[in-house]
Amino acid sequence: MISKNQIKYIQALHLKKNRDSQGLFIVEGVKLVTEFLADEGITVKQVYAVSDYLKKHHALLEKRNVAFTEVDVEELKKISLQSTPNQVLAVVIKKEQLLTKELLQSQTNLFLDDIRDPGNLGTMIRIADWFGIRQIICSKSTTELYNPKTLQSSMGAVLRVNVVYLDFEDLLPSLAGTPIYGAVLNGQNIYTSNLKPGIIVIGNEANGISDAVLAKITDPVTIPAADNNGSESLNAANACAIICGEFHRQLHYKA
Amino acid sequence: MISKNQIKYIQALHLKKNRDSQGLFIVEGVKLVTEFLADEGITVKQVYAVSDYLKKHHALLEKRNVAFTEVDVEELKKISLQSTPNQVLAVVIKKEQLLTKELLQSQTNLFLDDIRDPGNLGTMIRIADWFGIRQIICSKSTTELYNPKTLQSSMGAVLRVNVVYLDFEDLLPSLAGTPIYGAVLNGQNIYTSNLKPGIIVIGNEANGISDAVLAKITDPVTIPAADNNGSESLNAANACAIICGEFHRQLHYKA
Repeated sequence: MISKNQIKYIQALHLKKNRDSQGLFIVEGVKLVTEFLADEGITVKQVYAVSDYLKKHHALLEKRNVAFTEVDVEELKKISLQSTPNQVLAVVIKKEQLLTKELLQSQTNLFLDDIRDPGNLGTMIRIADWFGIRQIICSKSTTELYNPKTLQSSMGAVLRVNVVYLDFEDLLPSLAGTPIYGAVLNGQNIYTSNLKPGIIVIGNEANGISDAVLAKITDPVTIPAADNNGSESLNAANACAIICGEFHRQLHYKA
Repeated sequence: MISKNQIKYIQALHLKKNRDSQGLFIVEGVKLVTEFLADEGITVKQVYAVSDYLKKHHALLEKRNVAFTEVDVEELKKISLQSTPNQVLAVVIKKEQLLTKELLQSQTNLFLDDIRDPGNLGTMIRIADWFGIRQIICSKSTTELYNPKTLQSSMGAVLRVNVVYLDFEDLLPSLAGTPIYGAVLNGQNIYTSNLKPGIIVIGNEANGISDAVLAKITDPVTIPAADNNGSESLNAANACAIICGEFHRQLHYKA
């Protein structure tokens, strides 16, 4: 049973301005919430779940000492952002994520320059996780990490990738000679380039990389299209997937 | 000015059952509609557009002999499926797409096994177009090509890729020894495989490739994850992008 005040308080967190002011966000669904609960780096403030979920995950809730409220399906619908809510919703405390310079100088990192679609951001975090990229730096204009759609499409990868918001000019001093790769339309063929660990810049869905960041790219790269193609571009998340895959191949499986 | 009957008739096409029974579908937005109008293989039945669009594209409408109706922004909202309609909506006649055996035996093709999300289907058509794949075969359970979200996310690639609906067992006799690659979790490392032109099977978003199709795969392939990754999978469209990219690399840019 959930009170009217609690419903109002959770519904408020559907909006970014309240997530920002409260330092809280919402996670939904059996798989994602359970992953968040199991992660010791995360503080879950409160869980709202149907009785089946609470029974099944009682030990985990006890172990992590998380407060929980039993709700029925109708109550869950009121607090959920999903069209078909899946058993559980958690309110989680945001954790400040800071730039890890070590990661920046030793491994492949991603810089997302003004990515607007939360689904794309979440998908790119999932791609990074798959290929072992442990840090993503987002321009401050990039969409919100805590948007429910971002979290949903990241499929839990947010728990394993450090996502930092920092504009490129503020990142620059930390790069210290690292190659700066940029996904552009007229760069070097990525398949014949000799890729090294560095930072990979992915630009905005409609406009690509901004002029200010473009000026700092040391290695512009392009995914070559087939001769008989008529398309103008790939979706930003798909371009990111192909580029991260090619870095992974060259750094680990090059003949 | 658009009549109430016309509004009803177009709104009916928002539903698949009516698109099926009428043999018609809807295309929206300046860029997409103009590409459809310019394509001589396409029959646009009727265009509904604001006066700016009609003025600018008058010559094209004349040349293609397409009937048009001027609408205002409020009328366009009534017939559109988009939250912010973009100047124009066209009603287009479906064209039967048949399997091209020649393409099947000489080039890389895609088989989509029960892809459910229209956005994913559209994106995969766009990926195919980019890499010069000219034919996609979809299982009959795969989502509809004429779903407005499919068309929107394909960004016009539907005009350049032959998309055929055919179950795998009915496709098999035409394969005649072509390698059948399947994206699976425990196949051969795609980066160290020796890829040849063949058919690439991409499975359902949640369940992967169905058992019946899996039994016919001759070359199971996997995108290797990093050792330190914690993720279980990539999104189907991203996996498709990486695999098509790697085929493209090996067939065109292998050192």
